[in-house]
Amino acid sequence: MRPGERELRRARAYLNWVAEPPAPALSELVNEVGPVRAARLVAAGQVPHRVVAETSARRAENRAEADLSAIAALGGRLVVPEDAEWPAEAFTCFAMPVAQTDERWRAPVALWVRGAGRLDELGERTVAVVGARAATGYGEHVAAEFGYELAEDGFAVVSGAAFGIDGAAHRGALAAEGRTVAVQACGLDRAYPAGHQGLLDRIAEGGAVISEYPPGIRPARHRFLVRNRLIAAFAAGTVVVEAGVRSGARSTASAAAALGRVVMAVPGPVTSALSVGCHLLVREEQAVLVTRAAEVVEAVGRLGADLAPPLTTPRLRTDGLSPELRAVYEALPARAPRHPEQLVRDSGVPLHRVRSALPLLELRGLVGCGVSGWHRVLPDTGRGGA
Amino acid sequence: MRPGERELRRARAYLNWVAEPPAPALSELVNEVGPVRAARLVAAGQVPHRVVAETSARRAENRAEADLSAIAALGGRLVVPEDAEWPAEAFTCFAMPVAQTDERWRAPVALWVRGAGRLDELGERTVAVVGARAATGYGEHVAAEFGYELAEDGFAVVSGAAFGIDGAAHRGALAAEGRTVAVQACGLDRAYPAGHQGLLDRIAEGGAVISEYPPGIRPARHRFLVRNRLIAAFAAGTVVVEAGVRSGARSTASAAAALGRVVMAVPGPVTSALSVGCHLLVREEQAVLVTRAAEVVEAVGRLGADLAPPLTTPRLRTDGLSPELRAVYEALPARAPRHPEQLVRDSGVPLHRVRSALPLLELRGLVGCGVSGWHRVLPDTGRGGA
Repeated sequence: MRPGERELRRARAYLNWVAEPPAPALSELVNEVGPVRAARLVAAGQVPHRVVAETSARRAENRAEADLSAIAALGGRLVVPEDAEWPAEAFTCFAMPVAQTDERWRAPVALWVRGAGRLDELGERTVAVVGARAATGYGEHVAAEFGYELAEDGFAVVSGAAFGIDGAAHRGALAAEGRTVAVQACGLDRAYPAGHQGLLDRIAEGGAVISEYPPGIRPARHRFLVRNRLIAAFAAGTVVVEAGVRSGARSTASAAAALGRVVMAVPGPVTSALSVGCHLLVREEQAVLVTRAAEVVEAVGRLGADLAPPLTTPRLRTDGLSPELRAVYEALPARAPRHPEQLVRDSGVPLHRVRSALPLLELRGLVGCGVSGWHRVLPDTGRGGA
Repeated sequence: MRPGERELRRARAYLNWVAEPPAPALSELVNEVGPVRAARLVAAGQVPHRVVAETSARRAENRAEADLSAIAALGGRLVVPEDAEWPAEAFTCFAMPVAQTDERWRAPVALWVRGAGRLDELGERTVAVVGARAATGYGEHVAAEFGYELAEDGFAVVSGAAFGIDGAAHRGALAAEGRTVAVQACGLDRAYPAGHQGLLDRIAEGGAVISEYPPGIRPARHRFLVRNRLIAAFAAGTVVVEAGVRSGARSTASAAAALGRVVMAVPGPVTSALSVGCHLLVREEQAVLVTRAAEVVEAVGRLGADLAPPLTTPRLRTDGLSPELRAVYEALPARAPRHPEQLVRDSGVPLHRVRSALPLLELRGLVGCGVSGWHRVLPDTGRGGA
């Protein structure tokens, strides 16, 4: 462990625990001053009012050392954004405009992990398969098939390890000797549901069991909703196999949509209450209807090709832009903001189309808008922090 | 019969038979010079080359009189565009741009009809429910439900009278004592399929069995495809309940789309080969996914509001009724009398108020009272024709 790394890890562990996630004000503070300084300021109460509100209940107690010991005893680890293993690429979705403006969709401060798989690798080619706990035989059959075929196709299958659809999807992936990731809504010192202890152990063998919650934290209803955004973020697309009208799976679907992920739903008999949620997602145009794994790969692949050309090929950030979008992007100087009016001549694009092009470029993370106008957003570089 | 009407009807019968429909060149000729003159020109061979090509095989023989006698013997009639009963409003779809540029989508020259229903009324508020012959129990169940509920909601249910989905849809509508229309791909002197002779007779009681083909014409593969366009045209929307990858139901869906109709598909288990066609229609954005009759009504209604504002004003006969009057009116089946006592449960209105509601509805011309009880009064008709 490099000097300072122990301090960094302790700071992240403290920050991860001191506020119930997602904690938008604390996240901002960490981004601004780095985790080590943020941890000190929080502990001292020398933070803006909004951060105080998020952290006052727990700030006096520092369980970082105890939590790190507990995870080590479980054979696990704390993965922090400064680690090479951090799934940075998958988590760029937390910078989506919708995620930025909605406090629910914040990146985690750190992740507790148990398992042989590296998070960055697992997050590279990943599909979430989720659905009802009280699933039908049909639903479990389909979830297992999708899990199997996606794993065979090289996808890591991420889900929530619940009974029903989640469990069937994990088992399908394991049956194909593929990799699968379970995201828990409690500390990793317990298995949830307890009946899936064996399944979770098998998942950890080649994949990972992960949680935003430190050891000792119990599952609670609101934590499942918060957890669902991690499932959605971690995967390039989310498939809902069976869901009632109100269901956790639909909350995962909403998170996936907000984070710019592909949302897919599997149809079923219209006579089945457990397919109602899936049909609603399709009818409300929130999800693409999929009937087999190949269609999932196609839907996820298409987005991948459009939005995230693989790192290996010469990865021009402007690949895939229309000529007009590219012209507007290139008319923006690298280091200075501009107003739309100033881009017309250089880009050769009429003003009204410049105005509509800029938000599209923002969606792709290429430009941003500040007080003095629009500016290029440069690729994420040298990590800040401690 | 008015003078000249007999000649007109004979001319249409001849034209209807002399070319295998759809016969675009002949249609154009009829539109240009009228049916009587067109029939004379065709018989004399004094027509443009394209019309000769369509008519030369049969022009020397005139079976009009024989066909008209045959349909009369069956208790049926020939309905021609000059009749008040002609479903002119429904058939305006044949003037859609796609229909105009594609020779497959031409209006029929005349229709052979057996049944008590008037075509213009049947075509007013109509949904087609179609699907596979080799349907599953699930598909037949759903088709019957849709047929029943749509008929209860005042829709005529149109289909092709085939085994499987078609038959179930007709039966559902009949079970609701509603109106249903079967479109055949052969002359009405035979039932197709023969096993549905009884069903076709029941359909004719309150609805209609119709065909573009004169008596004596046998069903053939290409005639089913041509027939399917009539099903699609006659209905405001087409629901595909079950369909394989290649299927007649999908051809009806294509026709419906080309004619500007709403296309809907019912999902089913992804493990069922008979839902593959439905899922494809949704995936390819050719159909809206529907799971129950209310969604069909909504989809069809929305199109009605969007694309085809009624020529008069929103002319629901029940407009302006109080909720209670409406409930009592709607508790009356479309085609059967009821005593006040029998309306209490369905309407949810107490007996004494049902008793006072019925005369109010009678004042509005909506219901009448006969020997066997109260019955709905259908909109004014005044039948023309032979």
